[in-house]
Parts: sequence; C-alpha cells; structure tokens
Amino acid sequence: MTESIYVGVDVGGTSIKLGLVNGEGNLLGTFEGPTGTEAGSEVVLQNITEYVRKLVDQSDYDWGQVAGCGLGFPGFMDMSSGIVRFAPNLRWTNVPVREPLEHILQKPVRINNDANVAALGEAWAGAGKGIDDLVLLTLGTGVGGGIIAAGKIHEGYNGMAGELGHIQIVPDLEAIRCGCGQKGCLETVSSATGIVRMAQDALERGEKTALGMEPEVSAKAVLDAARAGDEVAIRIVTRAGYYLGRTMSMLAVILNPQRFIVGGGVSQAGDILFGPIREAFAKYTPPAIQEGIDIVPAVLGNQAGVVGAAGLLLRS
Amino acid sequence: MTESIYVGVDVGGTSIKLGLVNGEGNLLGTFEGPTGTEAGSEVVLQNITEYVRKLVDQSDYDWGQVAGCGLGFPGFMDMSSGIVRFAPNLRWTNVPVREPLEHILQKPVRINNDANVAALGEAWAGAGKGIDDLVLLTLGTGVGGGIIAAGKIHEGYNGMAGELGHIQIVPDLEAIRCGCGQKGCLETVSSATGIVRMAQDALERGEKTALGMEPEVSAKAVLDAARAGDEVAIRIVTRAGYYLGRTMSMLAVILNPQRFIVGGGVSQAGDILFGPIREAFAKYTPPAIQEGIDIVPAVLGNQAGVVGAAGLLLRS
Repeated sequence: MTESIYVGVDVGGTSIKLGLVNGEGNLLGTFEGPTGTEAGSEVVLQNITEYVRKLVDQSDYDWGQVAGCGLGFPGFMDMSSGIVRFAPNLRWTNVPVREPLEHILQKPVRINNDANVAALGEAWAGAGKGIDDLVLLTLGTGVGGGIIAAGKIHEGYNGMAGELGHIQIVPDLEAIRCGCGQKGCLETVSSATGIVRMAQDALERGEKTALGMEPEVSAKAVLDAARAGDEVAIRIVTRAGYYLGRTMSMLAVILNPQRFIVGGGVSQAGDILFGPIREAFAKYTPPAIQEGIDIVPAVLGNQAGVVGAAGLLLRS
Repeated sequence: MTESIYVGVDVGGTSIKLGLVNGEGNLLGTFEGPTGTEAGSEVVLQNITEYVRKLVDQSDYDWGQVAGCGLGFPGFMDMSSGIVRFAPNLRWTNVPVREPLEHILQKPVRINNDANVAALGEAWAGAGKGIDDLVLLTLGTGVGGGIIAAGKIHEGYNGMAGELGHIQIVPDLEAIRCGCGQKGCLETVSSATGIVRMAQDALERGEKTALGMEPEVSAKAVLDAARAGDEVAIRIVTRAGYYLGRTMSMLAVILNPQRFIVGGGVSQAGDILFGPIREAFAKYTPPAIQEGIDIVPAVLGNQAGVVGAAGLLLRS
C-alpha cells in the first residue's frame, strides 16, 4: 500500500505557501508563489490549484497518493460549507472555496482560520506533539489564538472562537482602545504593535532609555534592549508578559489545556518574556488547575500554517 | 426494534437522583434515594446499583432496553478511566466508578463532573436544545460552569475545564479573596454567597435598605427586595449581573458559543438580573462576535443533572 500524503496551503495577502505533509505531520516538500490578490478571487483560486499541482509534481510522490488539501485563510469563514466570509487582506467577501477546489482537484478540501491552523500544526507536529489539549498564542502585529481540544480545533458556532487577542485583560483604569472597538484587549499590550506603542509612550514621556537611539522603534529593538539590560525596555516586555500570563490563567480555568504555546516574532524574546509570563501564570492560577500545565515557545515557525492546514484532513 | 433507554444518575452528598431518559432526552421516570455518604464509597456504589435497578423495575421498560448508565459527580475526575479523583462532598479520593459499575450492571458506564453534565442536559433537551455550542453558568453557593462545544462536553486535559466561577473578572482594586485562594473570582460577586456577602457589607456600612428587616439575609431576600425597588438590593443584583455579562464577553471571544444559559437559584431573579447581564455583554463584546449570541435562563432546573448524565452515553 502506498503512503497517503496531504497538501497544506497557507494563503496570505501577498504570498501562498504550500507544504506536502505525510501522516505524521512531517514536511516532505514546499512551494511558494504570489497570491495575486489584486486579480480577484477567481485568479487566486486558480493560482492555488496550479501551485498544488506544481508542489506534487516536484516531489517524489504521485497525485494518486494525495488524500486531500487543507487551506488556512486570514479572516472569518464558515468551515462546514467551506466559504470564506470575510478576509480583508484578500479583499474577499463570501467566496466559496471548498466546492470549486474539490471540483477542480477531485480531492477532499478543508478550510479553516490561519490562527487555528497554526495551532493544529504545532499540536500535530510541533511544540504540542502528542498533546490533545493546548492553546497557541501568536504574538505578531496582533495577538492570534488557536484552541485545540481533544485533538481538534475548537471552532465555535460560527468559526470565530479563539480570538484571544481580544480578551479584555487590561484593567479599565489603564486600558487603551483596541482596533476592535473595545478597550484593554490583550493585543494592545502583548503584540509587536503594543510593545512598540509602549516604547513610543515612554520616549514621549522623556524616560531614560537606549531605545531612542534608533531612528524608528521596532518590537525587535525593544526586545534586544531589554535583553541588554535597558530598564524601560525590561518594564515594557515584563508588562507584555504579565498580561499574557494573566490571560493564560483565565484560559486555564476555562479550557484546562495541558500546554500553552507562544509563537510569532515576539516569542523569540526568550526568558525576558517567558519569565514574566510564567510568574504571572503561577501567581494567578488556582494551584489545582495550574498543576501539570506548561508554557513553551512554538517550534514550527512559519511552517505551522502549512503543516496544520494539511492536518485539517485528519483532524477535523 | 425496541427503543433504547438511558439511565442518568446525579450523585450528591445527601441524595442520589436518577432519571430514565429516551434517545431524545425526554424523562420517562425518576427515582431518588439517600446517598449514604457516611457508610463509605462501597456502600454508595451499592446504593447506586440498587437505585438503578429500582428505577428500571418501576418503569414500563425492560432492563434489556437500557443502553447504559451515566453519572454526574460533584468534584474532579478522570473521565476516560472513570475514576473519581476528589469529591469533598462524598469524602472520596481516587474511587474507581466505571469499572465496578460496568461489572455489576453489565452496561456501559460514563462519568463526568456535575456542572458539565447539567450543561449537557440543557444542551440536549433544555434551553439549548438543537444548539451545539453553548455555555452554562449555574449560580448557586458558587458559580458552576459547563462548556458544550460541537455538541460535546469540553473536558480539558484532566477534566477540570469549565471552572467558570474562578475566572478573575473583578478588577484587583475592588476584588476580595475567593475560597480558591485567588482574588476577584466571578463567584465572589455573582453566586448566592456573593450576593449575601454584598448585602451584609451594605448593612454593616449602615446603608438605607429594607434588607435589614429580615433576621438573616438570604440571596432570595436580596433578589425579592431588588424586584420591590430597594435601591441597595438593585445595586447588588446589578453588580452580580454586570460581572456575569463581562465574563460572558470574555467567554464569547474565546469560545464563540451560540448561547449562554444561566441556571441555579439566583437565575430565577428574572429581568432584574438578566437586564444588567445583557447590558454589560452588549457593551463589552466586539460586535462581530456578539452577533447571533443570546443569553437565556435554564429550563430543566434540578432535572438537568439526570438528563445530562444519561446523555453522556450518546454525547461523549
């Protein structure tokens, strides 16, 4: 019997990444091409099918071995009907994906949200391998989230579960307005954007810090400065970590995951971020619930998306 | 073909309630007997098997039609192995339930936490009938919780998910210590106990209220006074509702349920409680996530436990 393989597709606004994955979640080959967003959804779907065929053609595997194709999209979607409801980066509203792709590829197709798919990737073959209940928090421009429960993505009733960046964790007194319209969302303090904003605020207040030396403050600059001992930078990263830890406390009593995985660029900060996360989590989580839970960095990086998308065929 | 029926058992510290339930979650018969906690776990298990047989004997159904038996316990347990890890009300530590009962009854047996089981009951045949993603909050001595996702109980990695009473929703500045050791837990303000405490605080501060007329302040007295227009009582019930609504906002972005169900004695307060809940929820939930979610009272009352326990056979 020949081995079944799975195609995972990570659709972004500028590029589409693909991976060929085996039944254990190992990456056997990759492909990347432009999305072609400006040409409209039909062209994007054509590009996807073309890239899928190229990925398989370039590999040592036959088309007949492909058991299906999973796709992760940035935005909101109806997973069961396979329709992308709203994807601002692609300028899509109500674009059917599953049906047309199944028709063209003649293979089962699954779609899901990109943050959910990344969580599934880490759960299947990354930092959560072998663990059925986990939460991924991805620290980037915003804070993305994905919940894996009993080995599967927790989707919610209309696919909007896991919007963990919009947990209102910052107390009203010190909360600022988030892009979502609410105040005090986790991503106002723990995303790259949040870290940059806190640094700019410190500079505007005239605080003594090495950060001002750079022409533009980046999250990486703040993390580097914190590691180098800059007190203002340390305070900012500690605050980002503190609210992540408190959010995890809250998630732990609600979801009881076995592991929290922190991904995204900011997560590469290391102990300077994970220290405050773990400290706040230990302080604010009831001991009985805290027991046996760990907090670890993601390991798959950009590949979590394609691996997890391929995993949709096996785990949804 | 004869109809399959299911036995649901709700094990409490003083009494054991049983229900015979059909495949649609309708209650066909009930039985209740003393738990016998003081005689130890072996006797309690004997009582359970005796009551199960009596329940079926008293009914119009045959033992052969019984497809299995589900049990809800107050405490923490390992659902997959069927062992109750810790149930303080029963004074149990590490008591195997599934295996001995399956051996005696010669039927499949499932166990779960009583709050989870109540949520499953409401989802199956109560206020959440036909809805696959919902959250039940039970307002009693504490605040219990149960999460139903994709039609099943969200258990978490060691069965401790849904401890919604211990979400730390009250800001640190006005938070008081909870029995769990943490501060600001939902149940410090939104349980019957929390409502009584707030009333006692108001009386101690010498606030002008009709509440002091009673020899002892009960949660019911506070709810009745609020309905009668007592301003202090209204403020207390509004605060209980406000933090319930804010907790639901948080749960909505995490879990994306379609419905919140509020059960337990306090939930019978009606609009005086549900008004503030809905107001806070509307104010603090991002509009896109709020859409299509409703907040309703539970309908099964004490029967949620036996119905949901029976449902464990079909939905876990």
